[in-house]
Amino acid sequence: MCVKCLAQRHNDTDINRAGFEPPVIVCKAAVAWEPNKPVKIEEIEVAPPQADEVRIKIVATAVCHSDLYYLLESMNKDGFPTVLGHEAAGIVESVGEGVTEFQPGDKVIPVFLPQCGECRFCKSPKTNQCETAWTLIRRDLMVSVQSRLSCNGKRLHQFAGTSTFSEYTVVHQTALAKIDPTAPLDKVCLIGCGISTGYGAAVNTAKVEPGSTCAVFGLGAVGLAAVMGCKNAGAERIIAVDINADKFEKAKVFGATDFVNPKDHNKPINQVLADMTNGGVDYSIECTGKVEVMRSALESCVGSWGVSVIVGWTDLYDVAFRSSQLVTGRTWKGSLFGGFKGKHGVPGMVKAYQDKKLKLDEFITHKMTLDQVNDAIDLMKQCKCIRTVLTVCQE
Amino acid sequence: MCVKCLAQRHNDTDINRAGFEPPVIVCKAAVAWEPNKPVKIEEIEVAPPQADEVRIKIVATAVCHSDLYYLLESMNKDGFPTVLGHEAAGIVESVGEGVTEFQPGDKVIPVFLPQCGECRFCKSPKTNQCETAWTLIRRDLMVSVQSRLSCNGKRLHQFAGTSTFSEYTVVHQTALAKIDPTAPLDKVCLIGCGISTGYGAAVNTAKVEPGSTCAVFGLGAVGLAAVMGCKNAGAERIIAVDINADKFEKAKVFGATDFVNPKDHNKPINQVLADMTNGGVDYSIECTGKVEVMRSALESCVGSWGVSVIVGWTDLYDVAFRSSQLVTGRTWKGSLFGGFKGKHGVPGMVKAYQDKKLKLDEFITHKMTLDQVNDAIDLMKQCKCIRTVLTVCQE
Repeated sequence: MCVKCLAQRHNDTDINRAGFEPPVIVCKAAVAWEPNKPVKIEEIEVAPPQADEVRIKIVATAVCHSDLYYLLESMNKDGFPTVLGHEAAGIVESVGEGVTEFQPGDKVIPVFLPQCGECRFCKSPKTNQCETAWTLIRRDLMVSVQSRLSCNGKRLHQFAGTSTFSEYTVVHQTALAKIDPTAPLDKVCLIGCGISTGYGAAVNTAKVEPGSTCAVFGLGAVGLAAVMGCKNAGAERIIAVDINADKFEKAKVFGATDFVNPKDHNKPINQVLADMTNGGVDYSIECTGKVEVMRSALESCVGSWGVSVIVGWTDLYDVAFRSSQLVTGRTWKGSLFGGFKGKHGVPGMVKAYQDKKLKLDEFITHKMTLDQVNDAIDLMKQCKCIRTVLTVCQE
Repeated sequence: MCVKCLAQRHNDTDINRAGFEPPVIVCKAAVAWEPNKPVKIEEIEVAPPQADEVRIKIVATAVCHSDLYYLLESMNKDGFPTVLGHEAAGIVESVGEGVTEFQPGDKVIPVFLPQCGECRFCKSPKTNQCETAWTLIRRDLMVSVQSRLSCNGKRLHQFAGTSTFSEYTVVHQTALAKIDPTAPLDKVCLIGCGISTGYGAAVNTAKVEPGSTCAVFGLGAVGLAAVMGCKNAGAERIIAVDINADKFEKAKVFGATDFVNPKDHNKPINQVLADMTNGGVDYSIECTGKVEVMRSALESCVGSWGVSVIVGWTDLYDVAFRSSQLVTGRTWKGSLFGGFKGKHGVPGMVKAYQDKKLKLDEFITHKMTLDQVNDAIDLMKQCKCIRTVLTVCQE
């Protein structure tokens, strides 16, 4: 990997110690030049990290549905060209002025939800947003800085503050979590988005209680992680719902106890679940990003106290529902990155994996290299994978 | 009052003691023969209470917007003829077999949300619904029994399990709360619906925290009670929102600190509130029943942790919203009867009034008699009152 990495000519640590500015790195990245087209492996330039920034070598990055959403659905033309990718793990290569938390050689996971630690949001236990950074997932550029990535003299937008489909990238220090140096990066990269998102939606946002009945809609990686979260929280019954019955076997691995394919039923899915559960589930977690499913998930909860959590992302369509569904006692919430504060949540998730309290290996259905990123995107588009991990640079 | 009340010929207590069945009572009631027409004062027959039922003399009943909703908007033709009214206070006249909790002479408030005390809902602190009784407000008939009210041989539907626009009515014992015998019935009748609904939405459902910023949309009795709830919960700032600026003076009485008339602004109300509050309020409470307002109230909350509570009732239209509004961290809830369990919550609210911790007198803008019920309905239709209390029978 890193065939043209100029940085390799130097001892990065020495450069930093001596106070020299690290050089521009020329390396490979997958550039998305325009929406709805294959990405292209290009030689890009990665500028040195500026104040409060960290340049990292990406060792492994997975393809998440949010990458596809941005590329294929959101059609946010102003956000191109860009380097996609945000679910990754790597090693700190150099740090900018004022960065004391990280040192070259640290193992890290970029987090698309920064955490400055100082603002009213960061100081509150009620949210994982950071007011001084971004508060919306669809921000095109990095926190408080321009992107350090360019290709043929053209500045590349930084996707989700991370842009990990690249051998090197630069992130703000508030958007990076330091992890245990013994953690296997080709596994724990998944903690950077999907697994934390689904798992946390169950344990942090829904706050699933022991003995409860849950339903998870959509059995991609996020949904499967939600199933695992429900299981670890002590749910007695976990109903896995998907229109692709092939996914049920995997859902069982993560703890699902019942399996429902809406295509097998003539009545609305909320009625099917109500019949199965004496009136509805205690918790439902929506992991599809489809507005009709969001409504169904709400209606599938028991009217008196059901909690429904929207995890799937869309900002393209309105959700419609009857207000009486809430007035009788349901609660509707949403979850971004599973409610985890980035810097604090990620190391704990890594530890949970190392302690065998969290499954990660079972999500990985394919392994490829960065060069094969379009194949990985196609696999996800065709729903033929759970997670594909792309190896990028050697550790 | 009670001009033709046959029961007055007897000593009710003696009848019950002797095991005789109490007689049919012939009395006055306001009968709603069909939707969207004035109600008519009629002579009706009130049959004796059957097993688990209680017949009560209504001393005072207020007109609540839910009565108007049923009469004018829901157009639920199958539910007519009926006797409206559900926000009332009275005195037990006789009890049916198996009733030990109530005795003739007890002061009581009917509750439209029954509480059997035995079912999984009643036993849970998470809900004020009762599974063995009704779980939807628009149930036309009484809990587990047919209505005891008839007029000219035609059975009258029992509205909200109560039907209090009548000198006498019969309710199920699970739909009745015993209150302090010294409580003034012409005041505490308001606790039977609107005031508990708004007040509880703030303190029980939103769980407003000290020092927080709140917005209340709609300043009818329910909204004003929500303002009072926010105030009593320790909110620092309470923004009262209404398109009728005449209501702001009253809102101030209950604790509102800021006043916003959407008609005074060219931008969406959520932007107005965001500008006033550094990004949105901590809690918003919707008390209009309008779906556009429900959406605005959600969007007016701060994206990271805002809690919005729908209190206004409509089951006629879908609410539309962007799911991203929830995913970034908001919570959307609903509140029915303010989250109070009927039997347990009502006596506590009466005590709070007697202890001067709860205002009630300030809601009462008009006093009339049952004969004037159509005038009272018109006043509410024209938004010219907060609450009109109809005196029905003498204590």
